[in-house]
Amino acid sequence: MDNKINIGSEAIIAPFRVGGMTITIVGVGLISGSFALAMKQHGFAKHIIGVSRTKASERKALELGLIDEALPLEEAIKKSDFIYVAIPVDATISMMRQIMDLVNDKQIVVDAGSTKYALCDALTNHPSRKRFVASHPMWGTEYSGPEAAVTNAFTGRACVITEKEKSDAAAVEVVENIYKTLGMHIIYMDAAAHDVHAAYISHISHITSFALANTVLEKEKEEDAIFELAGGGFESTVRLAKSNPAMWAPIFMQNRENVLDVLNEHISQLRKFKSALEKENIEYLNELMENANRIKRIIK
Amino acid sequence: MDNKINIGSEAIIAPFRVGGMTITIVGVGLISGSFALAMKQHGFAKHIIGVSRTKASERKALELGLIDEALPLEEAIKKSDFIYVAIPVDATISMMRQIMDLVNDKQIVVDAGSTKYALCDALTNHPSRKRFVASHPMWGTEYSGPEAAVTNAFTGRACVITEKEKSDAAAVEVVENIYKTLGMHIIYMDAAAHDVHAAYISHISHITSFALANTVLEKEKEEDAIFELAGGGFESTVRLAKSNPAMWAPIFMQNRENVLDVLNEHISQLRKFKSALEKENIEYLNELMENANRIKRIIK
Repeated sequence: MDNKINIGSEAIIAPFRVGGMTITIVGVGLISGSFALAMKQHGFAKHIIGVSRTKASERKALELGLIDEALPLEEAIKKSDFIYVAIPVDATISMMRQIMDLVNDKQIVVDAGSTKYALCDALTNHPSRKRFVASHPMWGTEYSGPEAAVTNAFTGRACVITEKEKSDAAAVEVVENIYKTLGMHIIYMDAAAHDVHAAYISHISHITSFALANTVLEKEKEEDAIFELAGGGFESTVRLAKSNPAMWAPIFMQNRENVLDVLNEHISQLRKFKSALEKENIEYLNELMENANRIKRIIK
Repeated sequence: MDNKINIGSEAIIAPFRVGGMTITIVGVGLISGSFALAMKQHGFAKHIIGVSRTKASERKALELGLIDEALPLEEAIKKSDFIYVAIPVDATISMMRQIMDLVNDKQIVVDAGSTKYALCDALTNHPSRKRFVASHPMWGTEYSGPEAAVTNAFTGRACVITEKEKSDAAAVEVVENIYKTLGMHIIYMDAAAHDVHAAYISHISHITSFALANTVLEKEKEEDAIFELAGGGFESTVRLAKSNPAMWAPIFMQNRENVLDVLNEHISQLRKFKSALEKENIEYLNELMENANRIKRIIK
């Protein structure tokens, strides 16, 4: 590991960009792979190491040029300036503990998980806590694995950084600079607030989409009809149902209380539509839809 | 009205394309406006007349070049070879009765409604039934009005024609040729089957999207958070919530039984997720999502 990261100095950014860091990505999938591509593209990375549970993923990531080298975790950490962890959120906690036990006071560790409270809570008293920056780039697709990685991901989206105050200020600055260069806008939150908002903005959309797919698969016995008739509306509401259960089950479990809270509300909102239809109450139906139309004010 | 439509002849298509028809669109909105643009673009139309309830929409449609002229219904019909009706499905029934009372045995009348049973049923014994072709082009966006009309709509989507056998064969051929030229593939169904499939493929997606918007608007008091955090997943599941209630309330009411049937199933599918989360049953959660993943086989 070289010493390009000059903690607490205004000069941090420049050597980062000019020389480029040695970066380890833990997990070689959609998020980490897309992150690796962006880090190369923007000159942040001179060398990227991949750490994966499976040889097949390592090979694929090498083949696709997402990583320059695959190594076991401990060796990878030793050689790296910057470690980026993007694996299922349940595995993240134990993985992060291992990593944090290995890092020195110059390295930066960042996670990209969709839940923040459990992880931040688990690491709160770790002696190297300051080396860790908790982030959630709000970008993704319904695909997973190294093949799902794309260039120009992240652009135009939000990135949440939680518990900024528990991280080294210079480390946060480095991470902010990276995400901003990737075209993201940074939002600061405490970890618990993040998880509440994520339940509304992301997690519930996935549950409704999974449930909608199950509804159609259960009731529509003529799959050809779905295939032939499905238009833009159906595809856009159901596309998240292709998402990887191995990624989403741990997210829902870690954010269980918030997700249940939103899910209960969502079921009760659907029941209002049911009631309006059962009673043939067109005024109420219109009222429900007009209320929903207010979402126009919020999303373009 | 000229006599370009040579019923029952192989030569139907050619004069259609070469000379171009005089077409009336009833309603000057998203669907009819996009249809008008396509009919001009592909040389089917030499003159397009718009019929609208409001002067403002007529002016806008003229201004946008969707129509060449705005006329009252009766005058418009007299001058037209082809009449295309795309207005809310409740208004369609009485409008179509008026139109069918006016048409001669050379004119073709087509509707584009999202429900087919009630309309086909209402017209089944009309003396001019053969002049009517019942269609549902499976394309749309969440926007409405003349400003929402776009070029190159419809391409790559399905178009359902119901009760083909009750329409004049040559009239069906004309309509098929138009939709195929617009890039659509034609599917034939009886009207009741169409409404069942439409409930699954389109109507339920709109209800879940409206309900999701209401869920988030109800519970997420920090609208700024939605605005700042919302990513692709949220936007794609909620975008249909911007749809026009004046269009959708009549669809849901006309297709009430099918929609209720699907909605009940959907609520019960959501309850399975709720139960899995409440019981912290990660195996069940995975099973539900893996089942939903089967949608990959059906939509790309």
